[in-house]
Amino acid sequence: MCGGAGTRLWPASRERAPKQFIPLFGELSTFQDTAIRVSKSDLFDKPIVLTHSDFRFIAAEQLRAVGVDADIVLEPVRRDSAAAVAVSAILAARRRLDAIALVLASDHAVGNNEEFAATCRAAIPAAQAGHIVTFGITPTEPATGYGYLDMGPLLSDGHAHALHAFVEKPNAERAEEYLKKGYLWNSGNFLFRADALLAEFRALAPDVASAAQASCVAATPDLDFLRLDTAAFVKAPKISFDYAVMEKTAKAAVVPATYTWSDIGSWDAVWALSQKDSHGNALKGKAHVRDCNNVLVQSEAAYLTAVVGIDDAIVITTDDAVLVTTRANAGHVKHLVEELRAAGHREAIQHRRMYRPWGYYQGVDEGDRYQVKRIVVKPSGKLSLQKHLHRAEHWVVVRGAAQVSVDGKEALVTENESVYLPLGCVHRLVNPGKIPLELIEVQVGSYLGEDDIIRLEDVYNRSID
Amino acid sequence: MCGGAGTRLWPASRERAPKQFIPLFGELSTFQDTAIRVSKSDLFDKPIVLTHSDFRFIAAEQLRAVGVDADIVLEPVRRDSAAAVAVSAILAARRRLDAIALVLASDHAVGNNEEFAATCRAAIPAAQAGHIVTFGITPTEPATGYGYLDMGPLLSDGHAHALHAFVEKPNAERAEEYLKKGYLWNSGNFLFRADALLAEFRALAPDVASAAQASCVAATPDLDFLRLDTAAFVKAPKISFDYAVMEKTAKAAVVPATYTWSDIGSWDAVWALSQKDSHGNALKGKAHVRDCNNVLVQSEAAYLTAVVGIDDAIVITTDDAVLVTTRANAGHVKHLVEELRAAGHREAIQHRRMYRPWGYYQGVDEGDRYQVKRIVVKPSGKLSLQKHLHRAEHWVVVRGAAQVSVDGKEALVTENESVYLPLGCVHRLVNPGKIPLELIEVQVGSYLGEDDIIRLEDVYNRSID
Repeated sequence: MCGGAGTRLWPASRERAPKQFIPLFGELSTFQDTAIRVSKSDLFDKPIVLTHSDFRFIAAEQLRAVGVDADIVLEPVRRDSAAAVAVSAILAARRRLDAIALVLASDHAVGNNEEFAATCRAAIPAAQAGHIVTFGITPTEPATGYGYLDMGPLLSDGHAHALHAFVEKPNAERAEEYLKKGYLWNSGNFLFRADALLAEFRALAPDVASAAQASCVAATPDLDFLRLDTAAFVKAPKISFDYAVMEKTAKAAVVPATYTWSDIGSWDAVWALSQKDSHGNALKGKAHVRDCNNVLVQSEAAYLTAVVGIDDAIVITTDDAVLVTTRANAGHVKHLVEELRAAGHREAIQHRRMYRPWGYYQGVDEGDRYQVKRIVVKPSGKLSLQKHLHRAEHWVVVRGAAQVSVDGKEALVTENESVYLPLGCVHRLVNPGKIPLELIEVQVGSYLGEDDIIRLEDVYNRSID
Repeated sequence: MCGGAGTRLWPASRERAPKQFIPLFGELSTFQDTAIRVSKSDLFDKPIVLTHSDFRFIAAEQLRAVGVDADIVLEPVRRDSAAAVAVSAILAARRRLDAIALVLASDHAVGNNEEFAATCRAAIPAAQAGHIVTFGITPTEPATGYGYLDMGPLLSDGHAHALHAFVEKPNAERAEEYLKKGYLWNSGNFLFRADALLAEFRALAPDVASAAQASCVAATPDLDFLRLDTAAFVKAPKISFDYAVMEKTAKAAVVPATYTWSDIGSWDAVWALSQKDSHGNALKGKAHVRDCNNVLVQSEAAYLTAVVGIDDAIVITTDDAVLVTTRANAGHVKHLVEELRAAGHREAIQHRRMYRPWGYYQGVDEGDRYQVKRIVVKPSGKLSLQKHLHRAEHWVVVRGAAQVSVDGKEALVTENESVYLPLGCVHRLVNPGKIPLELIEVQVGSYLGEDDIIRLEDVYNRSID
């Protein structure tokens, strides 16, 4: 599942590029880490990726980058996790009637993939016996940000336990109590027999079950994606899988897990999970600290970020926004983003760099009646055949080769060459080469909004969204 | 005097664009505020601006912007304040034999220009009587960052006092003691009869006096500037005016001043001098705070700066660097800059936007073998006739009109037109129009350093530096 849009890791994470797709540690996103986690073992079949339609190209591109093949299923609207889990069960059952399905959030960190696979293996007998198995993490601290699992006696398979109760996120005092009682963290990952889960859905959340079923029946292929039927899917109630099924079912079981786990719910969690120097400082990118302890500094932009004399600071810089807070206040970032959104700041919602199926573009300068973008087109990438009503464009190719069509005339434009696209011309840009094409686009006109595109043809079927 | 290069207000202030030229409060720099302070009264003659040769164009441009006419005198090298004060006395004496000269630092804040003028007026009789009058500020707090003045009895003119002693910057305990004793802050501004001061220089710092004298005698005009003779000026010892003269002379006197004054020695001082909201927060630019008190946030860049849950924070963002510190640690910024310089960070020394006599340029994007700059040329601005050995350039005019010469061919290039400058061509750019010319320059080549310019001709005489 990678359709969510969290704001707690703003400004790295945005509604249009949420945290599961951001490289928070090292080079890979947690979505990529998750895909790798279930592909490097003979235990798992080809993954089914459930994501929002908006994220289909970034999901496909990130899978391609790590060499994981998956079925990508598109949710036309957000309906929380219950509908997504139901769809995944339906699609798993289509593959095999006795399929056992593992449902994973793609924005979690897991410390050890081998231990994770071993835990999955241990949970299979209980799942085969009809249980909906949830993975309970041994707590490392009295966290108040997680739900807890009150585990019952060991079941007959020798691995899974009965589940006495799901316990809501506690306050600090209760969290201490839960630790003493041996409660586990609820990690929100599940293993079940697809048919058994669907039976529970029909019994406990029939609206979700029928909407999911209808959206799969009427689903349509779209390039390499499977697009769930919109009219059917919108009828699913917005409800989480925990509320819709897990807290009601008599079939829940829990398998204790010993790997380290985090839902990376705040920048403080990112600090905790990051590699740190002897002062507890975690620095990434062009960052410099002086007289600091236990700080997290991530400079994703080209510019230098310097922090002097603050302990426990969190400083995140991107190419259009800077966040400064403390580890203790990191949980308030979501409220900040609400304020920024209410104030109309574009930075609350989207990045300057916009990913497209053909590559990406990024604003680099803007002024009165002009703006400048860097456009990078992947080999074989092909922009739509388009025209603009309010702007002319100048393209200067700075790397690679461009096949450019202007009002039907074709030309090959190579490094250090430029081409002019007068207002109203019908044009298309293709990278026919073997390396990424980079060009600088200077737009000049009275209106420079991204919505001044009339698409006449698009290989990525982008007329429908 | 505006030749200094402080680093305590990094990253707004850099060695190549120091704090006196930065708009720290509102729209004007303290250099501009200082120029206005001595031009809006019949008390003052045309100012003599002493600056380093590197700053001549920014000084001239900032004076022009506020409509102040001045003689601009260029120091070829930095020799601290003694040599500058000596030169100013020599040049004042050239204007009038009985000239009374006022020497001002250009990086100080003064609360009230009328009170300032009144204080100058009150100091004139003592100066005419041969005293070197320093202005003593009534302290508002036991500051440890200022030197103090131990004032003696009132002199016969009725305004100035004898000066018992200059007192070095104290620790916190001594500063309290000085306040109780009625000591004043030493503001580093002086009023004197030029001939009387020069006599003291000859007696107390003859090396400074002779170097200053020789550098003025051999000074040469350069456009509208007067360039002190390098060979003579370098012989002046590097010493402050306080050490060279004030702490030795028997002619010192002090006039108490009641206007508020600050040398703006740190970001904490900028916070103290800024307008603040009811939480004590001083915000400038695209800044947003949540749950903060007594913070200073200056966002000079186009991007958004958000601060959550930190009191007393200082966050300064420019287009290539971010500083995060606290009011209490603001004094350590100069050490930070030393570290950054030692680590080879360009940001320690210069801004991304580079001022030139014809306007400015600013990098907006860079990649492998290319970079993109925004170039803004003032009306009538004229770049040098030049060529490059390692790069070709594409210019797209996005505002205004450009007169472009390429290998002797002239063309007028207007908004939404572009021109290509092949590697090695001899070219020149002129803004013949009435509004600023803005263009986007895309450079492509194997070496893109700013020093790949062969200047064949320059109206601003930039071959000599």
